[in-house]
Amino acid sequence: MNFCSDNVSGASPEIIDALAEANQGASMPYGEDPLTDRLRQRFNEIFETEVTVYPVATGTAANALALSAMAPPYGSILCHEESHAWEDECGAPEFYSGAKLVPLAGEHCKLSPEILEAALGRFQVGFVHHTQPAAVTLSQASEAGTIYSVEETRAIADLCRERDLKLHMDGARFANALVSLGCSPADATWRAGLDVLSFGATKNGALAAEAVVFFDEALAIDFGYRRKRAGHLWSKMRFLSAQLDAYLTDDLWLRNARHANAMAAQLAGALAGLPGATLLHPVEANELFVTVPQHVSEGLLADGFKFYPWAAGGPDCIRLVTAFSTSEQDVSAMIEAAQGYAAGTANSATDDVQTAV
Amino acid sequence: MNFCSDNVSGASPEIIDALAEANQGASMPYGEDPLTDRLRQRFNEIFETEVTVYPVATGTAANALALSAMAPPYGSILCHEESHAWEDECGAPEFYSGAKLVPLAGEHCKLSPEILEAALGRFQVGFVHHTQPAAVTLSQASEAGTIYSVEETRAIADLCRERDLKLHMDGARFANALVSLGCSPADATWRAGLDVLSFGATKNGALAAEAVVFFDEALAIDFGYRRKRAGHLWSKMRFLSAQLDAYLTDDLWLRNARHANAMAAQLAGALAGLPGATLLHPVEANELFVTVPQHVSEGLLADGFKFYPWAAGGPDCIRLVTAFSTSEQDVSAMIEAAQGYAAGTANSATDDVQTAV
Amino acid sequence: MNFCSDNVSGASPEIIDALAEANQGASMPYGEDPLTDRLRQRFNEIFETEVTVYPVATGTAANALALSAMAPPYGSILCHEESHAWEDECGAPEFYSGAKLVPLAGEHCKLSPEILEAALGRFQVGFVHHTQPAAVTLSQASEAGTIYSVEETRAIADLCRERDLKLHMDGARFANALVSLGCSPADATWRAGLDVLSFGATKNGALAAEAVVFFDEALAIDFGYRRKRAGHLWSKMRFLSAQLDAYLTDDLWLRNARHANAMAAQLAGALAGLPGATLLHPVEANELFVTVPQHVSEGLLADGFKFYPWAAGGPDCIRLVTAFSTSEQDVSAMIEAAQGYAAGTANSATDDVQTAV
Amino acid sequence: MNFCSDNVSGASPEIIDALAEANQGASMPYGEDPLTDRLRQRFNEIFETEVTVYPVATGTAANALALSAMAPPYGSILCHEESHAWEDECGAPEFYSGAKLVPLAGEHCKLSPEILEAALGRFQVGFVHHTQPAAVTLSQASEAGTIYSVEETRAIADLCRERDLKLHMDGARFANALVSLGCSPADATWRAGLDVLSFGATKNGALAAEAVVFFDEALAIDFGYRRKRAGHLWSKMRFLSAQLDAYLTDDLWLRNARHANAMAAQLAGALAGLPGATLLHPVEANELFVTVPQHVSEGLLADGFKFYPWAAGGPDCIRLVTAFSTSEQDVSAMIEAAQGYAAGTANSATDDVQTAV
Repeated sequence: MNFCSDNVSGASPEIIDALAEANQGASMPYGEDPLTDRLRQRFNEIFETEVTVYPVATGTAANALALSAMAPPYGSILCHEESHAWEDECGAPEFYSGAKLVPLAGEHCKLSPEILEAALGRFQVGFVHHTQPAAVTLSQASEAGTIYSVEETRAIADLCRERDLKLHMDGARFANALVSLGCSPADATWRAGLDVLSFGATKNGALAAEAVVFFDEALAIDFGYRRKRAGHLWSKMRFLSAQLDAYLTDDLWLRNARHANAMAAQLAGALAGLPGATLLHPVEANELFVTVPQHVSEGLLADGFKFYPWAAGGPDCIRLVTAFSTSEQDVSAMIEAAQGYAAGTANSATDDVQTAV
Repeated sequence: MNFCSDNVSGASPEIIDALAEANQGASMPYGEDPLTDRLRQRFNEIFETEVTVYPVATGTAANALALSAMAPPYGSILCHEESHAWEDECGAPEFYSGAKLVPLAGEHCKLSPEILEAALGRFQVGFVHHTQPAAVTLSQASEAGTIYSVEETRAIADLCRERDLKLHMDGARFANALVSLGCSPADATWRAGLDVLSFGATKNGALAAEAVVFFDEALAIDFGYRRKRAGHLWSKMRFLSAQLDAYLTDDLWLRNARHANAMAAQLAGALAGLPGATLLHPVEANELFVTVPQHVSEGLLADGFKFYPWAAGGPDCIRLVTAFSTSEQDVSAMIEAAQGYAAGTANSATDDVQTAV
Repeated sequence: MNFCSDNVSGASPEIIDALAEANQGASMPYGEDPLTDRLRQRFNEIFETEVTVYPVATGTAANALALSAMAPPYGSILCHEESHAWEDECGAPEFYSGAKLVPLAGEHCKLSPEILEAALGRFQVGFVHHTQPAAVTLSQASEAGTIYSVEETRAIADLCRERDLKLHMDGARFANALVSLGCSPADATWRAGLDVLSFGATKNGALAAEAVVFFDEALAIDFGYRRKRAGHLWSKMRFLSAQLDAYLTDDLWLRNARHANAMAAQLAGALAGLPGATLLHPVEANELFVTVPQHVSEGLLADGFKFYPWAAGGPDCIRLVTAFSTSEQDVSAMIEAAQGYAAGTANSATDDVQTAV
Repeated sequence: MNFCSDNVSGASPEIIDALAEANQGASMPYGEDPLTDRLRQRFNEIFETEVTVYPVATGTAANALALSAMAPPYGSILCHEESHAWEDECGAPEFYSGAKLVPLAGEHCKLSPEILEAALGRFQVGFVHHTQPAAVTLSQASEAGTIYSVEETRAIADLCRERDLKLHMDGARFANALVSLGCSPADATWRAGLDVLSFGATKNGALAAEAVVFFDEALAIDFGYRRKRAGHLWSKMRFLSAQLDAYLTDDLWLRNARHANAMAAQLAGALAGLPGATLLHPVEANELFVTVPQHVSEGLLADGFKFYPWAAGGPDCIRLVTAFSTSEQDVSAMIEAAQGYAAGTANSATDDVQTAV
């Protein structure tokens, strides 16, 4: 009953199994193994084009390394002010790239061509005093659990092309966004104008596996060195590739994401219906931010449901994140409990105990 | 029959099992889980003192992050000119620390107080034009498969103390060195004056797991930020901790290392006895560098034995690395084949094939 | 008649003379000369306390180096979103410190305890995902030509102390601010709680000379190395010190600043009185931002007056900067011309020419 | 009578005069002034080709910035182990470039194709574990006061071309080398295959002025940003350009260098003739390293002659550096005194005093 984050979940059993299976005999290290080769093919198929893929273990590494390939040290990278890259990576993108992140406001954690245009207006191209805008990074799904439609992504990509900016997508929750969009991976990415994708798997079923996917091969030219220099090249690469390979097998990634999103939708539907409750953002992936009366959230916590308050959403706002491993029972239990507290017909476990004493 | 490196091996089955076992239920992320807690205790026990431990996935990350905590950006770090840190990490230690690595020559890939003294003589303390010597890093076992005796480590540590330098050990093959030394982990490290250890597990049975172990807690004060900023903090940390926990359980690490070393010793004993063969370095861990007649190494390669030539050791020098997974049969087969080629009684598989055609 | 910036001016003759005078005989390099010694004394006297002083040639170097001594690589530095450090140093502060600058909005280019409190609320102390707030930087005078009163500085310093943040002042126009405040250098800085000052001289009469002044000596502990490692240590340091020494002699710095401010005040008084004109910010130092009818600014430009439009202030906003070298005649001429255009009694030089043709 | 370094000298009067002359009226900042324009032309003429020139104030800045334009962060830069870049810039080249400097031994502080070939043999191109050799830097004149002949430079440049390395020259004492070579600036640089030159002026008569000269314009593409981001762009650029302009006017730079070299030659000729004296290196520019009996050097120091012992050359080795400002009288006085001490006919001033007491 832990809704704190999708990273409180373990791994999909299929992925654990894949590790055991990959553990056969000797294999050349550093990506020279057959499993990694197969993985490259698989990515080509899934994205319906030739892509360049570099597996790494964490989302922060994927983002920071990807951005370091997209902006020079004197460049700037436009991002949302609530993005993971700006807020939750302890400066990793700047460390890896040397570039400056420029945080921008935007509703529901999303950027738009208008927001970007306004920001770009403050930079003078070729003016050595200004860092030079080099890239834009979007989170898909966003940190608010919202998604960019294909048209929204394309509009931003068009602006990027026009202004000679590279476009990156932080896809830590890419699968959740994709199943919500209902389009193909290609449509959601390079056909919409994306240059590089941090393709997340950890939050959606892997132990620790992400892939930096380059749609523009030229950007990847020195990525191997960058990854190694950062200590993110695994010697026993097969164990990173095996995770991603299993993740992409039999649509595991999409099934996991669909489940997580469905669980979020159920929670959202029920909680938003409580008296006095409001959703802070549309629920389009596997996260919801909802304001509920204080006694409801206190009751839930007392019952052992785990989640975080969300101060940015106001005093009574909480964040709930679902995952592939979130069970229908947990969701139902939470809804029932919340409805009980809202209706005043339930006492919290704590209260019970206190009464008992 | 792959002797290219210890990282061509997979993982110990116990470690794969531990991942499956760790994959139960929800668990708080980023190291706030019970398994990581237990791991910390285990390290305290093994080192017989309170240590500060940070798991990461790669040896390069462990070294580079450790060194970044031991030297300021204007500092210098003395290392062997054939060390992994200097040669094989694509500049990661410099990237992470900002400091300058200073490569020094020394027999059998080892440093000594005399070598360090001579090098330090070129630096003027307090002179702003010079980077300021801040740390020394040793590889244990060394890249030549040799080891520092406890006395040798202590002599270097004494010099470091006197000169106000921190002492780091790259223990990518620490277990191999330890079983060769035959002393306790504490005697091999902090009791000998070590400040920080990169405690390797990947080469000796883990999938991807190392630990930065601080014997001097003060050095670890900001390590959590450094690890995160480098993208080396796993969200599902339990899967990193589970590997290390299993590695340390029931002496798996020592058993694996003893086996690897024994295999290397067998190979060394037999190959050194071949006519015209010489060992480049004493064989004290799980690596051997041996010069064998060209037709012997060609024959072995043709038979499917895999290993690398070692140009630094001369035209006929080859490197063989054994691992926990190297089988007695493989070793016997190689010895037999080598002896056959040396005696001129064997034809290589390639020759056979060619004859057959 | 160039009001583009205070750096279009040359140097005060006294400062050129000082260079010639310093050019006598041999002198030990890198700051081991008597002139640099004397300069240190002079700074102690002027600030009425023992300070630690490092001369450098540019304001960007002063700021970036100062901030690098005040924040760790995983730290963050709060600044105004229109500050020179954020906008006009091409990322130098981040390059030198490794830290992240966090841009904040605030009226008239000024920060306040309230603005800082709100920003700090987004950071969780000890949370490794967040960069850790380490310092605040203020520009005095600000980039809007406004100044912080001593009370305003102190209020921010108090907050900094409480939150364990260091306080830096970008004093590229410190003299202009000081004469406007009418207090002592000590009152404007360390007595108000400041830790480090970038003491500017270039804009106010030097060729190229600034000083990083540490009121907290502990912060300066490794500054010598930082300056050298950045290539900002002059070998013939006497020529940097000579500039600063002359700048501080006989109140040259204060006289220059008073003149520049007076010229700005005259311009402001007159231009603000034009029909349709408004000042964007209070004029408290040597810069003014004023909205004037388009035909007025066009006329002035055509007459050969030089200045920049200021897009951030709206379509008709222009920026005028005065300097020690701005003559009363130039100011009078500009006022007269502006009044003429505003009253419709003047034709621009361009118009004249066009009429003539 | 100070022979400690060429940076103990002041500036040529012509250069001080040029500053005064440049101090006329307003001038656009940051290099948009007519004097900087003229300087660019002048460099084109002197080098008989179109070059790209960026003035900066220090030699360390020139070297570090130049190298940052020549090597990627995962690159390596081969240099001599006694070069200024390796030993005396506190890590500036690594800080600016992110690349790794690789120190190499070589007689008389010089590199050769053979030395470079051997070093390159340790790097595997395209192997992500190795930093990738990207550039070579030579010091001309070298830190031993020796020079590369045009043929020697060309031989190294040919190797660089073949191995796809860029070639940089640290010309802190370029003028001293040039007059010794007796060839044209073009022959000594780009015609010999050089890509980038740190053109020094400070040691040979400027206050603080060097120029990064790109013969390969493509390398300069982002240099403006790099210089600004490092705080090395002067706002009142005319004062940097004025120094260099005067330096190049009427052959001042060559006249100064010829004088300095002649003074060194006189000293070398006389001191090498002393009984028991030997020169450590050929004297080809303005530095000499000479071993003299201890009582001679003690006597000279007691007489007030200033110079440094040179430990690397042995216990009795001293270094003497001459400059444009070194007078014939000082040189004669030193020779006479040295000869006196060597012959036993002189007592040191100290001895006199002691005797007198």
